[in-house]
This record gives sequence, C-alpha cells and structure tokens, in this order.
Amino acid sequence: MQAQLAAVGRRLGQRRLFGHSPKILQTIKPAEPVQPISTPKRKKAGFFTYTFYGLIAAALAETAYLTYSVYKETNPGLQKPQSLLKENGNKKKNIVILGSGWGAISFLHKLDTTQYNVTIVSPRNYFLFTPLLPSVPTSTVGSNSICDPVRTIARQTPGEVIYYEAAATDVDPVNQTVKIVHKNMNFAHGEAFVNKDDPIEKTLNYDYLIYAVGAKVNTFGIPGIPEYASFLKEAQDATAVRQKLFNAIEASRLLPEDSEDRKRLLTFVVCGGGPTGVELAAEVKDYIDQDLLKFIPGIDKEMKVVLVEALPNILNMFHPKLIEYTKEVFKTQHVDLRTNTMVKKVDAKNVYASAKKPDGTTEEVVIPYGTLVWAGGNAQRELTRSLADKITEQKTARRGLLVDEYMKLDGDDHIYALGDCTFTANAPTAQVAHQQGEFLADHFNKLAKIDDLQYVISLEKDQASKEKHLKRLERYKNSLKPFSYRHQGALAYVGSERAVADLTWGSWSTVALGGSLTFFFWRTAYVSMILGVRSKLLVISDWIKVSLFGRDCSKD
Amino acid sequence: MQAQLAAVGRRLGQRRLFGHSPKILQTIKPAEPVQPISTPKRKKAGFFTYTFYGLIAAALAETAYLTYSVYKETNPGLQKPQSLLKENGNKKKNIVILGSGWGAISFLHKLDTTQYNVTIVSPRNYFLFTPLLPSVPTSTVGSNSICDPVRTIARQTPGEVIYYEAAATDVDPVNQTVKIVHKNMNFAHGEAFVNKDDPIEKTLNYDYLIYAVGAKVNTFGIPGIPEYASFLKEAQDATAVRQKLFNAIEASRLLPEDSEDRKRLLTFVVCGGGPTGVELAAEVKDYIDQDLLKFIPGIDKEMKVVLVEALPNILNMFHPKLIEYTKEVFKTQHVDLRTNTMVKKVDAKNVYASAKKPDGTTEEVVIPYGTLVWAGGNAQRELTRSLADKITEQKTARRGLLVDEYMKLDGDDHIYALGDCTFTANAPTAQVAHQQGEFLADHFNKLAKIDDLQYVISLEKDQASKEKHLKRLERYKNSLKPFSYRHQGALAYVGSERAVADLTWGSWSTVALGGSLTFFFWRTAYVSMILGVRSKLLVISDWIKVSLFGRDCSKD
Repeated sequence: MQAQLAAVGRRLGQRRLFGHSPKILQTIKPAEPVQPISTPKRKKAGFFTYTFYGLIAAALAETAYLTYSVYKETNPGLQKPQSLLKENGNKKKNIVILGSGWGAISFLHKLDTTQYNVTIVSPRNYFLFTPLLPSVPTSTVGSNSICDPVRTIARQTPGEVIYYEAAATDVDPVNQTVKIVHKNMNFAHGEAFVNKDDPIEKTLNYDYLIYAVGAKVNTFGIPGIPEYASFLKEAQDATAVRQKLFNAIEASRLLPEDSEDRKRLLTFVVCGGGPTGVELAAEVKDYIDQDLLKFIPGIDKEMKVVLVEALPNILNMFHPKLIEYTKEVFKTQHVDLRTNTMVKKVDAKNVYASAKKPDGTTEEVVIPYGTLVWAGGNAQRELTRSLADKITEQKTARRGLLVDEYMKLDGDDHIYALGDCTFTANAPTAQVAHQQGEFLADHFNKLAKIDDLQYVISLEKDQASKEKHLKRLERYKNSLKPFSYRHQGALAYVGSERAVADLTWGSWSTVALGGSLTFFFWRTAYVSMILGVRSKLLVISDWIKVSLFGRDCSKD
Repeated sequence: MQAQLAAVGRRLGQRRLFGHSPKILQTIKPAEPVQPISTPKRKKAGFFTYTFYGLIAAALAETAYLTYSVYKETNPGLQKPQSLLKENGNKKKNIVILGSGWGAISFLHKLDTTQYNVTIVSPRNYFLFTPLLPSVPTSTVGSNSICDPVRTIARQTPGEVIYYEAAATDVDPVNQTVKIVHKNMNFAHGEAFVNKDDPIEKTLNYDYLIYAVGAKVNTFGIPGIPEYASFLKEAQDATAVRQKLFNAIEASRLLPEDSEDRKRLLTFVVCGGGPTGVELAAEVKDYIDQDLLKFIPGIDKEMKVVLVEALPNILNMFHPKLIEYTKEVFKTQHVDLRTNTMVKKVDAKNVYASAKKPDGTTEEVVIPYGTLVWAGGNAQRELTRSLADKITEQKTARRGLLVDEYMKLDGDDHIYALGDCTFTANAPTAQVAHQQGEFLADHFNKLAKIDDLQYVISLEKDQASKEKHLKRLERYKNSLKPFSYRHQGALAYVGSERAVADLTWGSWSTVALGGSLTFFFWRTAYVSMILGVRSKLLVISDWIKVSLFGRDCSKD
C-alpha cells in the first residue's frame, strides 16, 4: 500500500506543481512593457485571471494525463511473442498461473513476462477489487467499475501472455500438467453454446505452476445457508444481493402495513461481523436512509438492518476503541447489532440462532428475514484438496496448502502457492495475497537471471570467466530473500460517511482513527490501491454521481 | 418526437445564448476608464479572456441547469395523496395501468394524476428505452443507462401513484378487478424469498383499466429457438447476448486454429432483418473491429457476423435507396447478409434454413453458430389471450386486442388497450405506442373534466346555470378527438458510424438520409426521445467514454 500511497502523493504533488504555474507566469510579466495605469482593482483582476488560467491549465493537464493513461491502457502496444528459446539461446520456461484474484494478478502485474512463456487460467475473466464489493449492492459503486478484465491486464505486460477462460480440473505434479475446461463464472445466463456433455478441454504443460485459486465460502455445515443465503464474494453475489433486497421490498408493498410477513420482508440480515459484513450493513442502512425513502416514502421507518456475529465483538482485528466507535455509530444509525449470537439453522423465512446472554446462559432466538447475506470465512476448493492428496507432504494440510518462505509447495519443486488457498501464519486477506504476489514475481524475475547465468556458465570454456560468473551467481542467489509480511493496517466503512482505520507504521506504532476524515482517507487509500486507471476513474466518477444525484434505484 | 426535437432546439438555443455573453460584456467595457495603452496584442488578450469567461460561464450554467434537472428528478417533492373523493366532492376514479413499456409510461407521464387514483402494475420495475437496446450487448451503452425506474417516473407526477412490482394473472371485466402476484423480471438470480408455493397476491379494483402489457417474442414454432437462441427484447436479453458472445470467444481460444468448432464458436448469427437485427449485427461487427482486436489480436480476421432474413430485403420499412446503402455498408464491413433465407430448425450448434436462389429453386443450408440471436416478430401474451376469450367482441382477436379510435376495447367500456397487445392499422412500434399513450392520457385528462362537470350538473338546481353547464359539457365532449397516428419516420444504425433515416414531414414529403451525418442525427434524435434527464446524461457519457477509451471488454 505504501508504494501506492506514494503514487497518490506524487499525483498530488503534480497537481500542486500545476497549481503554482500562475506564479511562474507572473514572474514573466515584467518582460512586457510596464503599464502606467495599474489601479489595485486592475491588479486583482489580473490575479484572478492568472489563477483562472492556472486552474484551467491544471485541469487540462490533469485531464490530458489521465486520458493518456487510460488511452495507453485501452490501446496496448505490441508484446514480445512467446517462444521456445530466449534470445541468448536458453530455454524459455513455461509458467502457468491458476486464478485471477489478488495473488495471481499481483504476480502477473510485476512479472517480467519476456523471461517466461506465461499462461493464465481462470473461470473469472476479470480481477475483482474486493474491498469495494460491499458498496456494489447499493450501487454506491458500479459492479463494472471494480472489475479489471484479465485480458486488459495481460496486454499491459511486456511479453505475450495467453489467457484461457477455464477452470482447472486436475493438476498432475508428476508430469507437470494441468487439465483445464472452458467454464465461466457467469452462471446466471447459462452456457447454451457449451454443451455440458461435450466440454472444451485442454492440457497445459508447466515448468512452474503458480497456484492462486483462492478459497470458497465456508458455511460451516449450517443447514439452509447454501440454499437461502447470498454470499458477498464475487461480483454476481453483489448483484444477487441487490436483486433480493429489491424483491423483498417490492413484495412487501403488496401486503398490509400490519402484516408480519411485510415486517419480515423488510428485514435485511447480515451474518458475519468482519469488515465485509460491517460495511455491507452500513451501506444498506445508508442507502435506505439517504436514497430509498425518496422513492418509497416511509421505508426508512419500516426497514430494519440486523448484523449477527457469533463472537462477542465485531471487527476483531481492530483496536478496541474503534470497535466501540463502530458500535456507537451503529446505535445512532439504528443498525441492530447482535453479537454472541451463533446461527444454528436457516430456512426460507427465518434464521435460528442461540444467543449467549451476559449471565452466561444461552437463549434460542428466531430472526425472520427478507434478505439474508452470509459473510462467513473460507473453505478450501475441491481442486486444492485433490492436489494436497497427491503430495505426501501435504496430506495433513486440511486448512490450506503448506508452503515454505518462498511460497514453494512443501514436497513439490515446481508448484508455488499463495493467497487464500495456503495456510500460513498470515491472515487470509487481500493485503497478504497482494504482497505475496508481488514478492513471488520479484523472486521469479531473479530466478530467470540465475537460470540465464547458469546456462552461460554451462557453455563457458574459459576457466577464469567461469569463476567470475560463478561469483556473480553466488551474489544472485544471496539476493533471494524469503517473504516477510508487512502489515499496514485495516480499514472499514461503518456508515453515514464515517470509517475506521487501524494503521501500522513499522512494528512500533499503531494509529487508530475513526470519523469523517477517516472516511476520506478510506476512499483515498482504496482508490490508490485499484490497479487500472480506468477503474480508478470509474470508481471516483461513481462516488461523484452518488454525491450529486443519490444512488440509483433501478434493480437491473 | 417533434416536441422533443423542439426541446433539443431550445437547449441548443440556450447554449448559443450563453456563448454570446462575451459580446454583452464587451459592450459594458467602455464604462471602465479608457486605457491609453491599447496595442493590438492587448486587445486580442482581452478578447480571449472574455471568450474564456463566456465559455466558462456557459459551461457552468449548462452544468448547473443539468444538475438542477437531475436533482429535481432524484429528489422529488410531495405528491397529492390518493383519496376517495376529489376536492369538489366528486368520486375520484381508480385507474389501474398494466405494463411499464412505451404505452404505459407515456400514458402515466402525461396523465394528470391528481384527477385519478392511479396504480401501475408491472413485473419489470423500469421503463426500457428499447431503441438503444442493440447497443447494450457491446457495451456501447450501459444497460443501466437506458433503464428508468418506474418509481422515479411515478414520483415525478403531481399526484400519488402506487406501484406494484407484480404480474397480472387475471382480469375480471365483469367485476372490474385485476388479480396480481408479486413477480419480477430478473429471473436470473432466483426469487429465494418468495416461496413459489406461497405467492404474495393482491386484487385491485378499477374504474378504468389501461391495458399495455406488450407482446412476447414470436418464435413461429421453429424447433430449437426457445432453447438455443437469445432474444433482444429486455435488458437481461442484452446481458445474456453479451455473455454468450464472450463465452463463445473465450471457449474458441482453447481450440486449435484450424478447428471447425473454433470457426463455429466465432460465428455470431442474427435472425431477423428489422432495425433491431440490423443494428445488433452492426454493433457487434463494430465492436470486434474497433475494440476486441486490441485485446485478442487477430480476432477481427477470425470472427464472422451473419444476418439472416427470410424476406428478399432487410429494413423493409425503409426507402429502397437506404436498403441499398445498408447493403453496401454491410459489404464493406464484411457482414454476411443472407436474405431469402428461412430458418427451419435450430440445434445446439447449427441453424438449418432453406435459401431461395435467384432462379426460384430452394437450397438447404446449414449455418454453424457460436451465438444465436432471434430478433423475430410479436406474439400475444397468455393474459391477453385469456382476456380476449372473456369478451364476445374479442373472440376473433387472435393477432391482438381490438380497440376503437379512442383505444377503448371493443365490447368493454372500462378497459383501454394500447401498444403491441392491440391489433390496429399501425405497426407494432415504440413510436405508435408512445403516441397512443400520450393521446390516451390527454383523453383521460379531458374525461376527468367532463366527469366533474357532469357531477356539478347533477347537483345544480338552477336551470339557467344548468343550461350553461350543459353547453360547456357539449363543448368538452366535442373536444374529444379520435387517435390518429403521425408517422415521423424510421431510423437505424448500420455500422462504422453510419446510420439511415427515413423521415416523414406531414404526408407530402419523405427524406431518405444515410451516412455519418445521419449517425449524428440518429444519436441526437434518440437522446431527445429518452424520458429522464439522468438517463440522457448517462447515455451521452457512455458515448463519450466509448469514443475516448473504447468499449469495455469485461464480461460482467
């Protein structure tokens, strides 16, 4: 994040530079013939004029700069094509990346793709900027604004990258192959052209496999969750939540005001008090109070938002002061917070839970719902389990693949794994996967150099030169440093234009911030973290649209 | 359309007005102390400064005006509530509108909603600006940009309007009731909360029923169409077409270059040579040639667009010159036009058709496809058929409901029908439904006055006053004029920034236009026809985005 904050700093600096240009113009002024008449009024007009020109120039320059950036992004140049051999005659190795999330894309983004033949495989053809996903169901941010197509990202790199929209169905660590089948994440509208009995398959060979397939949602075996709850993990989930919310509201309009079913339909229940759950509850409450009531008068009084958490607190990774602050905001915003409440079962209309009371006894509670969102933890994908089963060292790895400090799989020298599919000392967050991806790309850029040097050494006949090369090789190998995670803090939006931030600079200082200014920091930090310039602009323009015109109320 | 073109004229006029303001500033100038030094250079700077100020002022004023319009649209004021009686003591009649298309929404938009208790019922909670739908699959225009929520429209009217997101399941003309059930058009993500065995229903009473439910797509009983083809009638259809197109392209990447299946997947087939089919084929071809090839190099050479039409010509309602022009554009753009080709059967991979050859013989042809879109004609909905069955005068009405020149249903005094669910001398187009809706609203505004006057007459004791009222009543009744359609022409986009326009002014003049200028006219005319200010702005901003950055290539 530091690099990106620095980038924002640079951008701000640029703006300031342009903002100063009027002064430069003024220093040029004396070169013109001195004007005999110079009343104070005249001077003021001059100042305004120049300020004006300055502002216009700054705005134009900024616009030109951004337009150029986006143009470059959308009109990529030629890439170095894939080949069997590098220019120096050494074999160009194949890297197959599985996944298109934080780990996979951060890796691809930083990798020198001219050094490898890179293939990326994912059933989801875009990178999703997950931190802003809770803003999508209320259309504070458009779903499209936080999706960066894999093809766009792949075309930005210097070397040719092949992308397959497909799911890996089998990894063969012995023969170093991956079997993939064409499949996409947009199940909503069917796959009419791909006959399910006649799948389109392909087998890829790899020298290195970058395994970054992420995890699936953990429902902890609670009956009813898969059938009745929505998740908030993918872009389609956000759309589904929006549609269910609207369906529930619209259905309630047909019922009399005192109907129990109407009250039920107008209850939005979120299970899971992590940042995702908290932000979703906050966004939905904002949406009802700020926008929906304009089109459905009185809805703000009828509608209820409930946040259910099994633990005694929400936002556990945050400073206790911030947890208190969030609780305070929820209280004034009338978000119904139910901590110590463990979900036991779900049916089409109710959540059944057991709530621990302050005296230690438990009570069975029933929470009727209109819309239910499950923002729970992670579980491993089938593919990950089957891969673990194939490698002796991974047999015990039930919570995720085991890797060394270079992200290399225990028991296999050709597979590297990162992100939510691994089990490490770090939490399964976007921040961790992002840093792992960048680390691994850097590691592979170094490995390419080492490989080239070893090739040169193998051909070298002259002993003196060989010695020199071997010394360099030693230096190169020493430059390979293990991964270490630098935690930079956590951010969460808690509603009514307030956010909480728990920031870490180095190991010695922690800053806990809450409030409206933090909200601006939250926005700035998130925008700076977005990969594509186009997406950055789209998210900012979404925010401007919302602040000017309110949030959209169409369901589609 | 004339009214809207006039509105655009007014807007342009406004802009010109602001553009002139520098001159006004210049005439004020002499009032300032005359400056002794006035070199030509100085003068020029002054002119630029003022032009600058003028432009800024114009831009600011325009922005302020638009912001205000959108603000008003998104922050509606109070509405006159529904009531049993009007202020004059007369009964306030119930109007139930079924539908949210061109007919229903044009009616609602023009109706004086303070004179009736209005309820609008539609499973689709937005009005869809259908003329721009063919631009949505390629994301030239965002699906959201052409959807105006019914609730937004209903809140703009002076009187309270109740909206139910529901489908009418039964109309009872004898008891004047409609049975509705909560249901929505977004089937994609399921309706988990509405138990199908436990539907949410309601019965509405009407004094007048405005029946504007539209039609469904006619597949003419061709086997395979419902299973394998997409339509292009609703917003979700456009999304489905986009996803199928992308799925087909992505699946093809897994196959070798000489594979027959790869060629098939890269064939986009549109059946139906009306404006919708022609525009879709043109948009898809544009998209491939202008944008897609940047991210998938070579796709422009591999991909094929085929337009199939059973009749000898496409765009039949257009001037022969324009048909020729369109054919010419298609030829240079390599759109494969197959006229005289009648589809007989469709399976998962092929379209089977019989093509009439110039010598009169027919030939069986097989067209393999990756994506198939059926842009065929209209068929009546079940509800319309069942309504027709209940009224003796409608028993023969197989092609649509029969109405008189006031849109009143033959055989029923309380039901009015308009748009694609009727069978009249006019074509089933948006233009016709729009004019019918506006006509009918005007008619009902007059009926309210007549009804109020009749009420006053019924209470009037004084014979002289009564006479006077009766004369007025006579005048009112004479003001009820039958509907007459004013055809204003047809427009279609034919690809590579060219459009065709077949315009009618009065009954005496027809102008046939084709080319790039017509394309600008096409855009201007369409934007002027969009109902909401927000949608107008969104569509324009979509066009600007595309011209700057190209079309989006993410599938979601």
